[in-house]
Amino acid sequence: MNYNQLVEQIKQKESFLCVGLDTDINKIPEFLKILNDPIFAFNKGIVEATAEYSIAYKINVAFYEALGKKGWESLEKTAWHIKNNYPNIFLIADAKRGDIGNTSAQYAKAFFHTLPFDAVTVAPYMGSDSVKPFLEYENKFVILLALTSNEGAADFQYFENNEFEFLFEKVIKVSQQWADKEKMMYVVGATRAEMLEQIRKLVPDHFLLIPGVGAQGGSLEEVAKYGLNANGGLIVNLSRNIIYAGNQEDFREQSAAVAKLIQMKMRTLLENHRII
Amino acid sequence: MNYNQLVEQIKQKESFLCVGLDTDINKIPEFLKILNDPIFAFNKGIVEATAEYSIAYKINVAFYEALGKKGWESLEKTAWHIKNNYPNIFLIADAKRGDIGNTSAQYAKAFFHTLPFDAVTVAPYMGSDSVKPFLEYENKFVILLALTSNEGAADFQYFENNEFEFLFEKVIKVSQQWADKEKMMYVVGATRAEMLEQIRKLVPDHFLLIPGVGAQGGSLEEVAKYGLNANGGLIVNLSRNIIYAGNQEDFREQSAAVAKLIQMKMRTLLENHRII
Repeated sequence: MNYNQLVEQIKQKESFLCVGLDTDINKIPEFLKILNDPIFAFNKGIVEATAEYSIAYKINVAFYEALGKKGWESLEKTAWHIKNNYPNIFLIADAKRGDIGNTSAQYAKAFFHTLPFDAVTVAPYMGSDSVKPFLEYENKFVILLALTSNEGAADFQYFENNEFEFLFEKVIKVSQQWADKEKMMYVVGATRAEMLEQIRKLVPDHFLLIPGVGAQGGSLEEVAKYGLNANGGLIVNLSRNIIYAGNQEDFREQSAAVAKLIQMKMRTLLENHRII
Repeated sequence: MNYNQLVEQIKQKESFLCVGLDTDINKIPEFLKILNDPIFAFNKGIVEATAEYSIAYKINVAFYEALGKKGWESLEKTAWHIKNNYPNIFLIADAKRGDIGNTSAQYAKAFFHTLPFDAVTVAPYMGSDSVKPFLEYENKFVILLALTSNEGAADFQYFENNEFEFLFEKVIKVSQQWADKEKMMYVVGATRAEMLEQIRKLVPDHFLLIPGVGAQGGSLEEVAKYGLNANGGLIVNLSRNIIYAGNQEDFREQSAAVAKLIQMKMRTLLENHRII
């Protein structure tokens, strides 16, 4: 999937919602647990209920790895189910990978070749050659961690050099030498909305993946105010609020209702910014 | 496994060698490929041949993920084989993980609960709450990326603040507030031996995991000179030089011969530093 196709999806669906499949076996409806693969059954239900309102799904790889090879199987089934049934939806592996070149090449193969993801989140700490192997795939994106939504972001991401430049700004500046908006996006936490204005000056056209609205306390309105650009340019992820909206037989309907509500808010924001 | 047990292993085996199982299906001997799980068969052969000379194995998770669920199965079998047959050997998941707290908790579960690893490599970019869930397990270690062996390390790890402090030094200093040498180690690339002296001042007693000797060009002697402490304090990883020493029927013997050669060099270095 490429940049323009993603922009098209946003305009068509009047939404910039990404649903995060942080699926935890302990939090899914009880009645699913008798099935052979309850995680996949749950994900399938959530995707069917929310695809109309979403432009992207983000699979949080940790939740699947925690279950070992059975979890990895649920991840694979979920990824292929989405890609085969909803080919226009942007599919993100939230994996926070990054290693020396020959090893990053293996991670890139895992998510872009063995699996059908459109994008993978990558940690910048190890620098250029840890990121570049992910950039060798056509129509695939690196989503590089810039300023994350968690409290610990303050420990190093705000590390400041003697030109009053923060580490996360340096990451954004340097990484633009590696790829442009057609292959690179950035993670910026919704809890850092005050920094979005500044970040938009550095990357006016890039897509930003925004976690942290909802359970982590970020505001959708603030994010839209400082983050939206002429193409939308935002992918706002919500996970727990949507996927655990219900935990009974009607969990699909409950999730659909929350996703629809958020999509309607997003439509208004897109209209107010004259994007649609 | 705890700090003292690891020190004991070093003294007993007169070695601080870690063998890296970066197993690539394209590089293993042809005759293994007819087996049901050639990756596991190869790893089992390498481990049996080198266990006598090694204090640790490091499984490079990317190489297994690249093969999807079948790769994950080979990883699981390898990890359990080592832990069940060589309980005194330190088992490292080289995974470079790190995410917001609830997600890092899932990664910690994957490697420390579902799988029997003693340590996992963690990227520091997201700060304290991305690392702490890994520290909640008894007798398990976080190996935090400090100064890596690759070229890209220069992009951000040498980012310098107005007190002439590098980012990697900041990472080492700040992270010591989270755990001590009983739960934390650091990755320092062998290609950065000139910085080891300085790093040893910050963490005199901690173990350092040193990749980059061999294929990446680092020198074992330089690493030992600046890195060894009274307990040894080093885990030096070699991968390609050992595991791909041969690619015929005698691959085990070839790998054993290289491992033995390195162990003998290490014994001399340990003796010269009066550690044994």
